Amino acid sequence: MDLADRFRGKRCLITGGLGFIGSNLAERLSGYGAWVTVVDSLIEGYGGNLFNVESIKDRVRINISDVRDQSSTNWLVRGQDYLFNLAGTLSHIDSMTDPFTDLEINCRSQLSILESCRKFNPAVKVIFSGTRGQYGRAQYLPVDEKHPLCPTDTNGINNTAGEWYHILYNNVYGIRAVSLRLTNVFGPRHQMRHSRQGYLNWFVRLAIDGEKIQIYGDGAQLRDFNYVDDVVEALLLAGAVDSTNGEIYNLGSGAPVSVVDSARAVLEAAGTGQLDQVPFPEEKKKIEVGDYYADFGKFKQVTGWEPRVSFPEGLRRTVKYYRKNKEQYW
Amino acid sequence: MDLADRFRGKRCLITGGLGFIGSNLAERLSGYGAWVTVVDSLIEGYGGNLFNVESIKDRVRINISDVRDQSSTNWLVRGQDYLFNLAGTLSHIDSMTDPFTDLEINCRSQLSILESCRKFNPAVKVIFSGTRGQYGRAQYLPVDEKHPLCPTDTNGINNTAGEWYHILYNNVYGIRAVSLRLTNVFGPRHQMRHSRQGYLNWFVRLAIDGEKIQIYGDGAQLRDFNYVDDVVEALLLAGAVDSTNGEIYNLGSGAPVSVVDSARAVLEAAGTGQLDQVPFPEEKKKIEVGDYYADFGKFKQVTGWEPRVSFPEGLRRTVKYYRKNKEQYW
Repeated sequence: MDLADRFRGKRCLITGGLGFIGSNLAERLSGYGAWVTVVDSLIEGYGGNLFNVESIKDRVRINISDVRDQSSTNWLVRGQDYLFNLAGTLSHIDSMTDPFTDLEINCRSQLSILESCRKFNPAVKVIFSGTRGQYGRAQYLPVDEKHPLCPTDTNGINNTAGEWYHILYNNVYGIRAVSLRLTNVFGPRHQMRHSRQGYLNWFVRLAIDGEKIQIYGDGAQLRDFNYVDDVVEALLLAGAVDSTNGEIYNLGSGAPVSVVDSARAVLEAAGTGQLDQVPFPEEKKKIEVGDYYADFGKFKQVTGWEPRVSFPEGLRRTVKYYRKNKEQYW
Repeated sequence: MDLADRFRGKRCLITGGLGFIGSNLAERLSGYGAWVTVVDSLIEGYGGNLFNVESIKDRVRINISDVRDQSSTNWLVRGQDYLFNLAGTLSHIDSMTDPFTDLEINCRSQLSILESCRKFNPAVKVIFSGTRGQYGRAQYLPVDEKHPLCPTDTNGINNTAGEWYHILYNNVYGIRAVSLRLTNVFGPRHQMRHSRQGYLNWFVRLAIDGEKIQIYGDGAQLRDFNYVDDVVEALLLAGAVDSTNGEIYNLGSGAPVSVVDSARAVLEAAGTGQLDQVPFPEEKKKIEVGDYYADFGKFKQVTGWEPRVSFPEGLRRTVKYYRKNKEQYW
């Protein structure tokens, strides 16, 4: 499928569009000649950053608003061909310390966005991003979409409700929707000011700064990383065809890496920093989910998607981006 | 297990305590010599009715408040040994026409109640009532707890989130909690003013009034009915032992009945009314989930529970109750 052809001239709304994945997607869509509107609340610490769209700022419409505000989403969804619904909090820790904010954004706002679509643009196609946190501890590996959902934090519960509203609105109201359950995504444009949204980009910062990368315990737990460009490709493919409507798909790498090996790969890509193994902190143990890697065969079968950027290559590009733009992210 | 022994002198809080199941439970607990507080918002049409506790009104504390009000739940949970957390909306249709209210009550309030417990009474044991609506259309029968969850309405999604918060708080904070996924429950004290909370009690009203009972299509879909006294017994057993903590259990009858046969049984119990088969309405088709009956073997194994009141006997008791107290429910 020629994605450029598919999205040229199309109107695309991206919630969370100033954030990590949203801004990478905006850049790609803008390059295809799509009419892109990015929506972001720029809440401190969530990952939205105006610099993320610096290179395309004259070609995209930037709308600062919060997905919790139904009045603005009522207006913003009108006339859009695609809604890439990526706004959400990602922090497992934050979701436990402030569960209500997590609920408002990841659960209630999703319902509210879908109601906006139902009322003002039922022809839109919605691409939702779920998370591997919905599965909780893996009962078997690799995790496919039939694996039971047993979230181990509030974030996983609220994301599941948010995802299911999409499938429900697809089935009952015909608002075409698809969900991709993302695994650990890394790459340029991720916020670099705290480690609460996933550890790999934080490791990149520590390495660039020549600091110690702390590994809890032996760091043998397996993780499944996707470079952000591959995830952007997957979101576009999921949006491009109607055979994905009402479906839920895993993404994954096909090549899981242990936490300690991922740290070593970061250190190698950066050429600076060092490893520091420490005992596992108690409060992190409670929500540590063990080995995880996904079977993305269902999505590959429908769209042909598979990751193209290797883990070391992705890390090299990431380090290069942040070395060049450090002052925008540190 | 001697439940009277177990609950005598215990402090029990029942949310939704003026409603159908809650008030039947309150009566049983009060008879055991427990200190019962019933909490209910008495929202029009939800099922709360002061007459439901008329026979025990001098022995229970009645607190009119809404579970959405965290300030009152903060106070009410203090000092309680057991929290039977039954407040919730039950209407599939209402959950689609007003999804936000369903979310506030079935999802957000559950988180809020658990936060109240975490802060002011972490030693309480919480018994939550889930629903067969969490499963959606049965992919196999009987439905056990490993069956995938695919809710076909907002109510099923929000109930799932509400249930999972309970399991999460059990696992992470040690707030002991158990969920029973109820199937169709019938019996005395159910509201009788509309049919949006399940059809069987509505059939009882129609039969008592000598009216026609409408069956959509052939009425061959199977349903799984529990008489309310059996459900009360199950809630008490789930609360009584710590081996249920963090677990989810189905209830069921072991003897599914078709919709049309359930109507015939109602007509027989009442001795009045008649059957009327009509075409299936379109908007009901969309959320009709087909045959359903549950495997309750997991719960039976842990507690020994099984239903004691047969379907015809339950219907006779139900008809008798409403014939005697018609003016309180019609």
